[in-house]
Amino acid sequence: MQSITSNQNKRVKEWRKMQSKKGRLASGQYLIEGWHIVNEAIKHGKQLKALIVTDATFLTQLSIDEGEVDTYLITPEVAKHISTTETPQGIFAVLETADYHESIPEKLGGSWLMLDNVQDPGNIGTMVRTADAAGMNGIVFGEGTVDIYNPKVVRSMQGSQFHIRLYTGNLNDWLTAFKKHNVPTYGTELNERALSYDEIASTKQFALIMGNEGNGVSKELLDKTDQNLYIPMNGEAESLNVAVATGILIFHFIK
Amino acid sequence: MQSITSNQNKRVKEWRKMQSKKGRLASGQYLIEGWHIVNEAIKHGKQLKALIVTDATFLTQLSIDEGEVDTYLITPEVAKHISTTETPQGIFAVLETADYHESIPEKLGGSWLMLDNVQDPGNIGTMVRTADAAGMNGIVFGEGTVDIYNPKVVRSMQGSQFHIRLYTGNLNDWLTAFKKHNVPTYGTELNERALSYDEIASTKQFALIMGNEGNGVSKELLDKTDQNLYIPMNGEAESLNVAVATGILIFHFIK
Repeated sequence: MQSITSNQNKRVKEWRKMQSKKGRLASGQYLIEGWHIVNEAIKHGKQLKALIVTDATFLTQLSIDEGEVDTYLITPEVAKHISTTETPQGIFAVLETADYHESIPEKLGGSWLMLDNVQDPGNIGTMVRTADAAGMNGIVFGEGTVDIYNPKVVRSMQGSQFHIRLYTGNLNDWLTAFKKHNVPTYGTELNERALSYDEIASTKQFALIMGNEGNGVSKELLDKTDQNLYIPMNGEAESLNVAVATGILIFHFIK
Repeated sequence: MQSITSNQNKRVKEWRKMQSKKGRLASGQYLIEGWHIVNEAIKHGKQLKALIVTDATFLTQLSIDEGEVDTYLITPEVAKHISTTETPQGIFAVLETADYHESIPEKLGGSWLMLDNVQDPGNIGTMVRTADAAGMNGIVFGEGTVDIYNPKVVRSMQGSQFHIRLYTGNLNDWLTAFKKHNVPTYGTELNERALSYDEIASTKQFALIMGNEGNGVSKELLDKTDQNLYIPMNGEAESLNVAVATGILIFHFIK
């Protein structure tokens, strides 16, 4: 176990750089932090490129073979430096960003969620967890949507990236591919020009696009879907939170 | 219009105290901030006890009669002092916390949401917005749930407290009252001991309890409901976000 006490250490600088998309693209790696998500990564057999702790005894509480992973003991100051939380738990791991699947699978089927320019990392993480809970096949992060490995997205996903496949891509291309494979595509609109969602029968095959918190799904994509849906609202609230709307729609579909 | 430049000003101290529940209980008032929510309060005819801006021209952009409300011009420093956001918009208003309805209405009917020990202000605000969007009749903040007028809850509700009636009370007493009025009561469990929610037909009369993010609804309340429900999950995520689960259940009920 290597001990690191300085924020100027070369490795610490590398880990810190993983907070930015540029840094993650350069290294092909990202940092996870906290007991729950590190345990989830180990449970799902992800290869840890490094395991970083503020207390050597932490290692005994993890189901890992110490010989197979590079381990580092850091000070609380270093933990604070590489963490994006205010009170780091003192346990981190480095993973490969291997889940940046950029090409569309040759066979497409089942249920899919597409994110068009969604901005709030907390919303994105909650949407990924919801799709995961529903047992969906995959999620596509469209251009303009916050990066999959943004530290706040990673924290909010709570390990769902180990359960459900996450893709990055052009949603126009994905829509074309879904059509080719006869997967019905649905956009969501905030107004009643669309069809009420509960007029669609539950189904195992669908691709649903959720949009930006303020502006919804882009017109270009709405024009290309098989059908656009809205959620009827009897009350006065102007809109539902996008993650709540996602839950209502997905769980209606899979029912 | 009174000008205030010091954080030591008596009124500024009063406004700042409204950040704490103790301060709100003592004054019977709370502070709202930001254009959207101040406009919502005015639109819904709420009497502003004070209107506080960092720029006098802001007043011309509001639909208010300046003679009917005490207005204050403050500096950006004072705004920062009384705000709970990092980048205040420079517009605040003081309202009465008149919506702390603590007694159970004599006539009870329609659809209700009860919050048992819910802790995250963002979740609470999102749940209130969801119940508002669904056109529900009221929400009861049970003991242990974060205060209705907690600044983060207020921000997250986005003005829904002007549309839907919010109560504070003992959920046991409320359950008794719903039973007396023949309103079916439902608890939610994170496991399959309960009934799958989609076995319940949609209905206009129901009282739904949502629980703490980690521990769910307390056993004492679950023992007292007519029926407890769960949301079947096919995937690997351990749980849904409580606000997402609330949306799925409520929109199933009201469909």
